[in-house]
Amino acid sequence: MQQQAFVEGTLPLYLKVRDQLAGQIDKGVLTPNTRLPSERILAEEYGTTRVTTRLALAQLEAEGKIYRSNRRGWFVSPPRLIYKPTHDYSFSDNVTAQGRVPETETLDVTATEANPWLATKTGLAVGDPVILLRRRRQIDGRPVLVENIYLNATRLPGIETYDFNRSLWKLLREQYGVELKGKRIEMYPTALVDPQASAIGVTAGTAGLYVTRCSQDGQGGFIEFDEEFWLHDALSIQVEVS
Amino acid sequence: MQQQAFVEGTLPLYLKVRDQLAGQIDKGVLTPNTRLPSERILAEEYGTTRVTTRLALAQLEAEGKIYRSNRRGWFVSPPRLIYKPTHDYSFSDNVTAQGRVPETETLDVTATEANPWLATKTGLAVGDPVILLRRRRQIDGRPVLVENIYLNATRLPGIETYDFNRSLWKLLREQYGVELKGKRIEMYPTALVDPQASAIGVTAGTAGLYVTRCSQDGQGGFIEFDEEFWLHDALSIQVEVS
Repeated sequence: MQQQAFVEGTLPLYLKVRDQLAGQIDKGVLTPNTRLPSERILAEEYGTTRVTTRLALAQLEAEGKIYRSNRRGWFVSPPRLIYKPTHDYSFSDNVTAQGRVPETETLDVTATEANPWLATKTGLAVGDPVILLRRRRQIDGRPVLVENIYLNATRLPGIETYDFNRSLWKLLREQYGVELKGKRIEMYPTALVDPQASAIGVTAGTAGLYVTRCSQDGQGGFIEFDEEFWLHDALSIQVEVS
Repeated sequence: MQQQAFVEGTLPLYLKVRDQLAGQIDKGVLTPNTRLPSERILAEEYGTTRVTTRLALAQLEAEGKIYRSNRRGWFVSPPRLIYKPTHDYSFSDNVTAQGRVPETETLDVTATEANPWLATKTGLAVGDPVILLRRRRQIDGRPVLVENIYLNATRLPGIETYDFNRSLWKLLREQYGVELKGKRIEMYPTALVDPQASAIGVTAGTAGLYVTRCSQDGQGGFIEFDEEFWLHDALSIQVEVS
């Protein structure tokens, strides 16, 4: 996305405006959650039109550098949470380690059974009992994901009675003696649609990331299948291979 | 996304239409690149309105199960390419191993120098000579990504004279004796904007995935920094941890 810096002479005007705004964000002149001046004022400041200014803002939104808050204008995005799928940590520990404040809310808990799709994903038989837990998670007070967690009800009897507004990993370890060992993670970009979009508080069609994680215990028994819907600008995935 | 199967009684109508269409795709009744019937005909078939039908189609597009081809209607998406970032393979080998046909086109090759952004990413000094290579890659004749590759010109003298419509890894190995060893990968969802969107042939704002990969040789020397812009429905990233 920074390639334009090499061909400055031919940069479209909106990319020059983009570069100047991005520079102010990268240098910390504009700090996270700061509101940007109005489009009219930005257009005056950069001596350009509102159409060009809007293109620059759309580019910065696509890159996740700014976000729109309903009718209140444009704001500087907080840094992306770094997630290393090859590491083992809970959401809460990972967020806290990056100097930020996690929060988890349980939306609902339902006793149900595995359908054919879930059976394929988990190795359960169709009809096996499952507890479906829906949660929303925030970073520094901003909703960044909603998740559907399917728990193995046979392996975790009575789990529906616990408080889920906390780390599920700790609950599994402390109450059931389960250590999550093997996991298969799959991720792809998606557009957020309802009910996920409205639960996060964005309009349907907003770019997002779909992440599933199937976790087992040390004996290879299925424990939980987690389906996460992330805001597109909230997360950065990093993998190092040596 | 399949959670609705558990609460069938309360499913919004558009999700029922979505489930029926998705079922036909998953069972192979509708095969990749098949054109769907028109919205009018689908609405009649499912006994619903065109508004509801359109919501169902938007949901399927968000999931990457169908795609729109300019003014020709809706088509069934080909399967996502599976990419395992912890494995070592070239794009071409990975695509071929999945029974599909890769194609690589060079868009342009430019001699330039590292700017501050690239210096931070690579460990080069600002001003160090770099070859910037822009390529477009296809799977089964469909453009799925464009990439900007920054090559260490000091380490790879004359590299700009080679044919890049092939595997870069093989070129590095065969002509320069370089084996790529360590790599740092970073990925996040984005919206595709120009010039990338038009190079792939989608409208600006289409959901995408931004992937960077910084590769070194066995001695830890910087070789190449690759910046990829993927169509959102073309790729699935998988990581297994045991």
